[in-house]
Amino acid sequence: MVSQQVNGIGRAAYGLWLTPEATIESMRTGFDGMCPEPPADAVVAEGRVGDVPGKWVSVPESGSTVVVHFHAGGYLIGSSTSHRDMAARIARAAGARVFLPDYRLAPENPAPAALEDALAVHHGVLADGTAPADLVVSGDSAGGGLALSLLVSLRDAAAPLPAAAFLCSPWADLTLSGDSMEGRAAADPLVSREVLQGMADGYLGGTGIPATDLRVSPLFADLSGLPPLLVQAGTSEVLEDDAVRIVDRVLTARGDATLQLGYEMVHVYQMFADRIPEAADAIERIGAFVRAHAGRTVPAVPAAPGGVGAMQI
Amino acid sequence: MVSQQVNGIGRAAYGLWLTPEATIESMRTGFDGMCPEPPADAVVAEGRVGDVPGKWVSVPESGSTVVVHFHAGGYLIGSSTSHRDMAARIARAAGARVFLPDYRLAPENPAPAALEDALAVHHGVLADGTAPADLVVSGDSAGGGLALSLLVSLRDAAAPLPAAAFLCSPWADLTLSGDSMEGRAAADPLVSREVLQGMADGYLGGTGIPATDLRVSPLFADLSGLPPLLVQAGTSEVLEDDAVRIVDRVLTARGDATLQLGYEMVHVYQMFADRIPEAADAIERIGAFVRAHAGRTVPAVPAAPGGVGAMQI
Repeated sequence: MVSQQVNGIGRAAYGLWLTPEATIESMRTGFDGMCPEPPADAVVAEGRVGDVPGKWVSVPESGSTVVVHFHAGGYLIGSSTSHRDMAARIARAAGARVFLPDYRLAPENPAPAALEDALAVHHGVLADGTAPADLVVSGDSAGGGLALSLLVSLRDAAAPLPAAAFLCSPWADLTLSGDSMEGRAAADPLVSREVLQGMADGYLGGTGIPATDLRVSPLFADLSGLPPLLVQAGTSEVLEDDAVRIVDRVLTARGDATLQLGYEMVHVYQMFADRIPEAADAIERIGAFVRAHAGRTVPAVPAAPGGVGAMQI
Repeated sequence: MVSQQVNGIGRAAYGLWLTPEATIESMRTGFDGMCPEPPADAVVAEGRVGDVPGKWVSVPESGSTVVVHFHAGGYLIGSSTSHRDMAARIARAAGARVFLPDYRLAPENPAPAALEDALAVHHGVLADGTAPADLVVSGDSAGGGLALSLLVSLRDAAAPLPAAAFLCSPWADLTLSGDSMEGRAAADPLVSREVLQGMADGYLGGTGIPATDLRVSPLFADLSGLPPLLVQAGTSEVLEDDAVRIVDRVLTARGDATLQLGYEMVHVYQMFADRIPEAADAIERIGAFVRAHAGRTVPAVPAAPGGVGAMQI
């Protein structure tokens, strides 16, 4: 079984920092340290877009396409440092430059700080001269949920939309209501309801914002009128159904969404593309998707009544 | 939860015939009787293609596209009668005529009788004047596995390929090795390892053909060089991973495959399109897929060494 090797790789990496005695600070340091270094030909440069700091990652293959990628980490950890290798691999596969925003993290900056920063980055990258048709938005895990929240907010505001979006193991339901939350519990070596609940509490704590709020659980939003969407997840994930349900809801809303499930793959397996062939393959599929869509303009839709935050589960 | 209503619909239908005291004959009668009657404007006509009997189903919207659909029933039950409504709905959504072959059933006609008949129907429909570009092959459950086996056989034989194929809840692994076989066991109200094992035994019994044989478990075949493929399944299915793994293997082989998982949907939920809105929606997605691909010619590939039945798991 593929799962034994993949689970071992995942457990060894997460075991470096996800321990019972871990603090927020040790988890942040550990998560950054777990992730591979970028390849030698990648250029990583500090940057600032929409007044949000971050890193630009490019490779010799990078062209005019810009991917703004929101990193994983449950809104509490993760950074532009952790995701340099993944960004470089995406850059190469997609022929793009990748910006990794260091959006503000909780609990210091609770909801909706991350979404505010995501909106600032989006408008900033356009103001800096990138055409919407050259822009792709993406994210993994909580960053995938954040990217989806961003798209919904832009759609509601009738703002220019990116040409496409892709999500890796997105976490788009902070109520944890997916049936894989139990159904894949035994199969998932990395993530659990307990871990996610702690992260949701950290992001929402003290804000009065419920987990059902569309700004933090965009799965429950109207998902019509979004750019073409690619969603990848593994079948060894308690979050599998977030991916499944996003795609199902987009298709039901007559949108364009593609689901790619990696058999026996773990949460954000793309992070381990240096060790797992299926993960490298997933990055290639992302690259093909971006290349197929970059350069196309997605029409903005009229602002919907209610706007961001209006609840209609 | 959607699942309560959907599971209830499925259980009520299957409960009419899937009982402990059921015989093969009572299951065949019961399965046929469970399925909805076709709509009033559907024309259902007895036919024969490649010397295999069956039914042609057309609606006023039917055009030049022909869908050859292999029905469900674990190689033991199901018929051109059971699938008249589903065929009519597919015909309308896809603008196609649908042929439902009554391929020979086990245990009277064990493996590989069904595949032999599928090949005969395929070559017969072309001989009768349908161009490969106007042909789409499909199937549900065991019929989905059969359709995939047919495609692999045609590819291996460098024979003309249909323009596209779609599979609903395909059963393509008679070894029952998908991780959803356990992971979705509690969620699946209709199908179980026990039921599937009985059907596999019925199809393979006495033949000496192992469950790993590519003619009955095409999941393990080389899945390169196939026509564009749409695969639908529900997340309340022990067979979910057959769908997931087929798409994953096609994509890994650089083919074109799309996965559409229906959240909390049951095995072959498309069968209940008269009662489940998500099922009617799935049929619409099939129609859009067929319309997007019909009329295109898929190049045949050179015959592979080994051919059908060569084992390379």
